[in-house]
Amino acid sequence: MAIKYELIKEDKQTGARLGRVTTPHGSFETPVFMPVGTLATVKTMSPEELKEMGANIILSNTYHLWLRPGEDIIKEAGGLHSFMNWDGSILTDSGGFQVFSLSDMRDITEEGVHFRNHLSGEKLFLSPEKAMEIQNALGSDIMMAFDECPPYPAEYDYMKASVERTSRWAEKCLRAHKRPDEQGLFGIVQGGEYEDLRRQSAKDLVSLDLPGYAIGGLSVGEPKHVMNEVLSYTAPLLPKNKPRYLMGVGSPDSLIDGVIRGVDMFDCVLPTRIARNGTCMTSNGRLVVRNAKFARDFSPIDEHCDCYTCRNYSRAYIRHLVKTNETFGFRLTTYHNLYFLVKLMGQVRQAIKDDCLGDFREQFFEQYGFNKPNAKNF
Amino acid sequence: MAIKYELIKEDKQTGARLGRVTTPHGSFETPVFMPVGTLATVKTMSPEELKEMGANIILSNTYHLWLRPGEDIIKEAGGLHSFMNWDGSILTDSGGFQVFSLSDMRDITEEGVHFRNHLSGEKLFLSPEKAMEIQNALGSDIMMAFDECPPYPAEYDYMKASVERTSRWAEKCLRAHKRPDEQGLFGIVQGGEYEDLRRQSAKDLVSLDLPGYAIGGLSVGEPKHVMNEVLSYTAPLLPKNKPRYLMGVGSPDSLIDGVIRGVDMFDCVLPTRIARNGTCMTSNGRLVVRNAKFARDFSPIDEHCDCYTCRNYSRAYIRHLVKTNETFGFRLTTYHNLYFLVKLMGQVRQAIKDDCLGDFREQFFEQYGFNKPNAKNF
Repeated sequence: MAIKYELIKEDKQTGARLGRVTTPHGSFETPVFMPVGTLATVKTMSPEELKEMGANIILSNTYHLWLRPGEDIIKEAGGLHSFMNWDGSILTDSGGFQVFSLSDMRDITEEGVHFRNHLSGEKLFLSPEKAMEIQNALGSDIMMAFDECPPYPAEYDYMKASVERTSRWAEKCLRAHKRPDEQGLFGIVQGGEYEDLRRQSAKDLVSLDLPGYAIGGLSVGEPKHVMNEVLSYTAPLLPKNKPRYLMGVGSPDSLIDGVIRGVDMFDCVLPTRIARNGTCMTSNGRLVVRNAKFARDFSPIDEHCDCYTCRNYSRAYIRHLVKTNETFGFRLTTYHNLYFLVKLMGQVRQAIKDDCLGDFREQFFEQYGFNKPNAKNF
Repeated sequence: MAIKYELIKEDKQTGARLGRVTTPHGSFETPVFMPVGTLATVKTMSPEELKEMGANIILSNTYHLWLRPGEDIIKEAGGLHSFMNWDGSILTDSGGFQVFSLSDMRDITEEGVHFRNHLSGEKLFLSPEKAMEIQNALGSDIMMAFDECPPYPAEYDYMKASVERTSRWAEKCLRAHKRPDEQGLFGIVQGGEYEDLRRQSAKDLVSLDLPGYAIGGLSVGEPKHVMNEVLSYTAPLLPKNKPRYLMGVGSPDSLIDGVIRGVDMFDCVLPTRIARNGTCMTSNGRLVVRNAKFARDFSPIDEHCDCYTCRNYSRAYIRHLVKTNETFGFRLTTYHNLYFLVKLMGQVRQAIKDDCLGDFREQFFEQYGFNKPNAKNF
């Protein structure tokens, strides 16, 4: 089995899990946040910078790499790790989410999805078999099964048919997966906000005995309390001895609330995307560094942060770079935001070790401002 | 005196100078290439990367910093070094070149130049006194006198009047310069391709006993042989015990030919600008990495290069990043190009030590392809 998970302990206050995942490219403690490197690069960052900030696993997108440069080129390069010079772990998604969110004119059949390339308009077809073929070529440590991610909200009947198809597709993925000793295949539990469908989906996928499971179809527009509720009843449906991955979630409050409900792994473009808009996460809430009030502010982005950006540069300098569209400004904000989340997850793991994640949540939410009415989130 | 120059030796084959410049922020051997950091950042690079590649002095642009963020903010930050976290040496230009090349509706008077801000259209006035005031606020190690840089070609009578005004402006700069113990003021010899005007300009400026001199008004559209000819008779007009700086020159052949004619310092946006277009300098000539033929080329940009980019990344990967407009691709090409020129100048200095710069030039031009008829240059 390519992927191993060890449950180290559970927080006495919340039941949150401290664990360790081992892949063919090393191991890392969970809960973990995975920076997103869509096109075989975490936007603006070098692999060394990711290592330096403590990232051990990144996510890359099958759909985007399939289109550019093409998985054949990456395979020829010796796989994605070699191509992008990243010797840590890599998780690739299945391409399904992008097919449903980016492309036009999609047509879903039992075999897969016909759609048009969002760049060229060319007709393409993605299926469980094709998603496996591409990810086997990329050589990621963790591959995701090809699933349908219905929009929110979806009608019960549609969701039911979709969940059943996603289960059949997961079986097809498992059969088509050619490198099980080198790459671990995770299934994705769907079912929207319908508890019985989540239960059915989890049951189907768990029966395949995959090395890990994701919870999909969340953070797609539903209110936060819905996400938390779905997590509360879905996570316990998954095996305790396998890692659990909540897809597409990266705001600090949702990370903590996900961990408290038993999630181990997260990814999101949020920290890198808002960084390129000049918005930073700080221990006192979000900071829009391009605002005029920071023009003469020579303090760091976050006075409590010890990252490269905060140790060396002022808000005034970063504001100047962001306002003039200078790449180095986006490097600095990106570094800071990723560091913030990587460090936050380290603090969360420490709190689990100390059996005080509930207290940690209260303090963090208070300082961050999440407890205020109408708190501005991301 | 803020700036010291020591002439270490002259190449026996060509007369090229090996020297050492010392500023309040350290010392460096010459000939030297200075990367350009227009807006208080060398585009895409961190200060640490510049240090790592061996850059000890960078150039920044007074005109751009005056407009954004404004020299008052930089002064409040403790000066440009502190603002941008660069503890090496900095040279700032006077803003004159940008006023003449970027702005519309300029009106030159004896007092200075009235023009419109190229960003906002706002009316502005730059003068010798103002250029000193801004550069004193920036706190650069080397400041440039405010000069007029006429277009090429210019009529003799116009050039004569311009040279005389530039000499009067240099005197005004010297009088207006408030921090001579911390910042060295260089004069700029103008005169276009008129030998007697170059002679007059050099004589006027040398009489001011400034700590260094630049040769301006070259690389503005004239053929290369004209530049070399002007350098051949202008450089010897300058004091042997002061550094000589050829402004705006950065193609490998012109650097070597400038050194051979007695120049010590160079700057140019060329390596960084072409990098952002996916073009690299290599020991075998230029390489346009975005070309389709590199899609499956897993060799480095330059097989003879030991820079970070060439040690870790393939042409295929860099092409993919450049084609998808990924920042990291431009970081990699920029790093490589700057390293290439910094290393080239190191080789040039070694050749001067070994008294073989003439031979080095022949070999380099041959391998680079400069000797071929219709050789593609930058």
